[in-house]
Amino acid sequence: MKLVIIGGVAGGASAATRARRLSESAEIVILERGPDVSFANCGLPYYIGGEIAAREKLIVTTPSLLRRRYRIDVRTRTEAIAVDRRARTVTARNLADGSTTELSYDALILAPGAVPVKPPIPGADLPGVYTLRNLDDVDRIKAVVDQGVEHAVIVGAGFIGLELAENFLRRGLRTTVVELQDQVLPVVDREMTAPFVEALVSRGAEVLLQNSIDSIHASGGRLTLALKSGGTLEAGLVVLGIGLRPENQLAAQAGLDVGPRGGVQVDERMRTSDPSIYAVGDVVETRDYVTGTPTQVPLAGPANRQGRIAADNIFGRESRYRGTQGTSIVGFFDQTLAATGLTQKALERVGTAFFKVYVHANHHAGYYPGAKPLSIKLLAEPGSNRLLGAQVVGTEGVANRINVLAMAIQAMMTVHDLQEVELAYAPQFGSAKDPVNMAGFVAANVADGLYPQIHVEDLESETYSQALILDVRTPKEFQAGAIPAAVNMPIDELRERLGELPRDRPVVAYCQVGMRGYMATLILREAGLDAYNLGGGYKTYRLHHPATNQHA
Amino acid sequence: MKLVIIGGVAGGASAATRARRLSESAEIVILERGPDVSFANCGLPYYIGGEIAAREKLIVTTPSLLRRRYRIDVRTRTEAIAVDRRARTVTARNLADGSTTELSYDALILAPGAVPVKPPIPGADLPGVYTLRNLDDVDRIKAVVDQGVEHAVIVGAGFIGLELAENFLRRGLRTTVVELQDQVLPVVDREMTAPFVEALVSRGAEVLLQNSIDSIHASGGRLTLALKSGGTLEAGLVVLGIGLRPENQLAAQAGLDVGPRGGVQVDERMRTSDPSIYAVGDVVETRDYVTGTPTQVPLAGPANRQGRIAADNIFGRESRYRGTQGTSIVGFFDQTLAATGLTQKALERVGTAFFKVYVHANHHAGYYPGAKPLSIKLLAEPGSNRLLGAQVVGTEGVANRINVLAMAIQAMMTVHDLQEVELAYAPQFGSAKDPVNMAGFVAANVADGLYPQIHVEDLESETYSQALILDVRTPKEFQAGAIPAAVNMPIDELRERLGELPRDRPVVAYCQVGMRGYMATLILREAGLDAYNLGGGYKTYRLHHPATNQHA
Repeated sequence: MKLVIIGGVAGGASAATRARRLSESAEIVILERGPDVSFANCGLPYYIGGEIAAREKLIVTTPSLLRRRYRIDVRTRTEAIAVDRRARTVTARNLADGSTTELSYDALILAPGAVPVKPPIPGADLPGVYTLRNLDDVDRIKAVVDQGVEHAVIVGAGFIGLELAENFLRRGLRTTVVELQDQVLPVVDREMTAPFVEALVSRGAEVLLQNSIDSIHASGGRLTLALKSGGTLEAGLVVLGIGLRPENQLAAQAGLDVGPRGGVQVDERMRTSDPSIYAVGDVVETRDYVTGTPTQVPLAGPANRQGRIAADNIFGRESRYRGTQGTSIVGFFDQTLAATGLTQKALERVGTAFFKVYVHANHHAGYYPGAKPLSIKLLAEPGSNRLLGAQVVGTEGVANRINVLAMAIQAMMTVHDLQEVELAYAPQFGSAKDPVNMAGFVAANVADGLYPQIHVEDLESETYSQALILDVRTPKEFQAGAIPAAVNMPIDELRERLGELPRDRPVVAYCQVGMRGYMATLILREAGLDAYNLGGGYKTYRLHHPATNQHA
Repeated sequence: MKLVIIGGVAGGASAATRARRLSESAEIVILERGPDVSFANCGLPYYIGGEIAAREKLIVTTPSLLRRRYRIDVRTRTEAIAVDRRARTVTARNLADGSTTELSYDALILAPGAVPVKPPIPGADLPGVYTLRNLDDVDRIKAVVDQGVEHAVIVGAGFIGLELAENFLRRGLRTTVVELQDQVLPVVDREMTAPFVEALVSRGAEVLLQNSIDSIHASGGRLTLALKSGGTLEAGLVVLGIGLRPENQLAAQAGLDVGPRGGVQVDERMRTSDPSIYAVGDVVETRDYVTGTPTQVPLAGPANRQGRIAADNIFGRESRYRGTQGTSIVGFFDQTLAATGLTQKALERVGTAFFKVYVHANHHAGYYPGAKPLSIKLLAEPGSNRLLGAQVVGTEGVANRINVLAMAIQAMMTVHDLQEVELAYAPQFGSAKDPVNMAGFVAANVADGLYPQIHVEDLESETYSQALILDVRTPKEFQAGAIPAAVNMPIDELRERLGELPRDRPVVAYCQVGMRGYMATLILREAGLDAYNLGGGYKTYRLHHPATNQHA
């Protein structure tokens, strides 16, 4: 068996080492255009910021180790320039001397990854304007930062954009983030990003939403960016982080099937439309685990697993990729935001019915010092009550909960299942009723029709525009901030004061997180009122209406 | 509906509030022997140590809140002394004035909890000898510590014993832990406790294993404990933490079915042998989630869920308890140990076949600063490859991984499923191949027969007593500590030096964590040698043969 692998980072390196472990005799060649294989892509921003101090830490595996231990013929600075499917050969160009070689293969794995999208604007190729994808990029950006540049503009407020913002701020740069959408982290739902916007602003970043760059000009060693909204930004450094494009040229030239968004199409075995050619990692179009529809999600974990699965199938082992959930996590200083499965906006885009709940809870028992609040949003399918997606934001315990919820989605659990899962509890690690259980309780109550819930966005609707908004918290909580036009009536007085409440229009009860509002709703309905609980209470309201205006 | 609940802590309080939410009109009475309802049982040791500074933090819910908000008739310092099943009445004694009342019920929930076992030894009732179960207990123990007692003896190295040890050490007490078994934390497998023993010793605790107390004598304000092994201990304070006994007297008197270990028997609806009487929490015998066999596991999470489930069924809602996995976690300073599902010793006790793997990995990407090692032990069922149990030990990320593995068991996942689960990765939160994925990879390789693995305990067996033990790590790693009689041959030299290896006896390869040993085993087998990989490598060997002798 002669196996050629194009690309030696996450998916390619995983495929190569798995292949060697499955066959000591196979001939395995890696063609890698760059100087490195298997580097820590996700660590690049932190090397710029100095959290990762030594550049060599970013090298996960060296070509020499792959040669020595795995007998893999690693050719770096070597670009695959053509695939002849009939002859089963790859033409490779040595980037040092320009010479070309032809390699035959029995099986070929395409793992070339994806490249940052460069927007088609004047000046996008100027010196000082960068994208961040590999070690060459990071060296260039770090050199500029090390030279003491004062102001950086980051175009795109996605994962890499926000990670770069943290690290530029750490280095003392004035930092502006420009984002086309009306929110940071556009892959999650907008309200869940409110704590991030607040953190960005409080750390001194400038955030420009619903804005973009029309052009970039260089003069006197500085870059001037013309904003779509009018006005300009001056910067010593610009990083474009607006998205990734699959490196599909070779696949397209070879006539392999490529999806509408550019991903190489593969089956569950990671096999392309040519049964001798596999593709893995950021270059492929896979299936969304929840919906089964095509998706393109550039994530390191899936890339590694896909590489392994391709190798398994090449060496005759039954192994299938189940699709990508899109489990992801991002930090910005002490804030953490994570998601798995589908978002509300994704569901709305395709018109899939859903119901949702918000839970705000402490990351461990509140009675133990150091408990930090986190917020969970669950999306579930009406009828089946299957979990469709989840998002978690907070400062501690976020990875823990998103992993639990990712497992729930993987296992196709329902919101009722979430009530019953048995998680670890000691006061410094969790709660007897874990936030995930709590989310299950609330969602199961909604699913079971135990009480009617409405959402912050419903308050604007005609149905509830005349409703009495009833704040059932304590007067002290009420005075510290409440929904406009709300009337305060603490829950513990409610049963005695029912006569004060209107019977000719809806009453929307709310508390801080939704629990007292739920009890209040039950009391009011028992008394014959047309009552509703505002899901997630005032905390959810504040996510939708943050103190920090996202449209600054 | 008139509902009487005996016991107002975890299960009882959960049942009562759920009941109110399900029915605004029900009459709900809680009879609680103690002065408090719903206190933070699991926080008690940390109040003694001062981590939890204010006593009121330990009060989760007050009787007055339950009365005010939930209209629950809470009667504290009131003991249920008899149940008349035919008349459906409970006789309650007011502990303040000794008066008795009779309460009728339509449904009765028993949630009296469990009490610490007092060993039948002379002196177990002396002043200065305590158990720890409620706020009265914690007040007594804290008073003695506050008085400046110098030496504490903890009998029993279970969860509470170790949590107390941490807190006594924090307060500057000389602390001795005496445990009957040959290990601390007897509910998990012995080798996984090695880091805890090391931490105990390094923090200054004295640990006496396979030992017990024959008697306790008081003289001159001090307690003298006679050890089974001979010799004595002097102490100003003794805490007995050797186990819990279900408070089943009332149930037994009422003729309800009680299991052989004392737990009140219930069905999936938490209903006892009398359909009007439910039982929840530490008093019940439930089913083990994995095996379906009867079990008694005193945990706060299950108690809360059981309370909720009992209330659901009483008010006509279909709701079933699925059994207890025994997910648990304990900290000792920075060490954390957690378990879910069955242990190896539990499997061996009942003679269930299993296979196991050990994985040692960093809690997040190694290239990001602050990565801490953790160790995972997985137990799975041969054939089905279903996960049976898991244990995790380390200083960071332990709760996260045990929760993921608890979800895997809840979902009845196989080791192959663990390979594919998609967990959150950014360098400060996880790894592209999460430790749980790694454990899945290793276990699936074993399940698929990709290489033969043996374990540390097999090295002692006749089959491998003549084997060559081949350390394939670097000379530097080898010199820093190796398995006795091992020969060093670094993996990267292996293919060239095959001729030096014996063909007349087995070769057991090992490295630091098992990965290089796995590759070495494949190379050796390809070359025709009778090679095996030592599962989990030298790190697993060190868990079995720790530097700190557990039999001190």
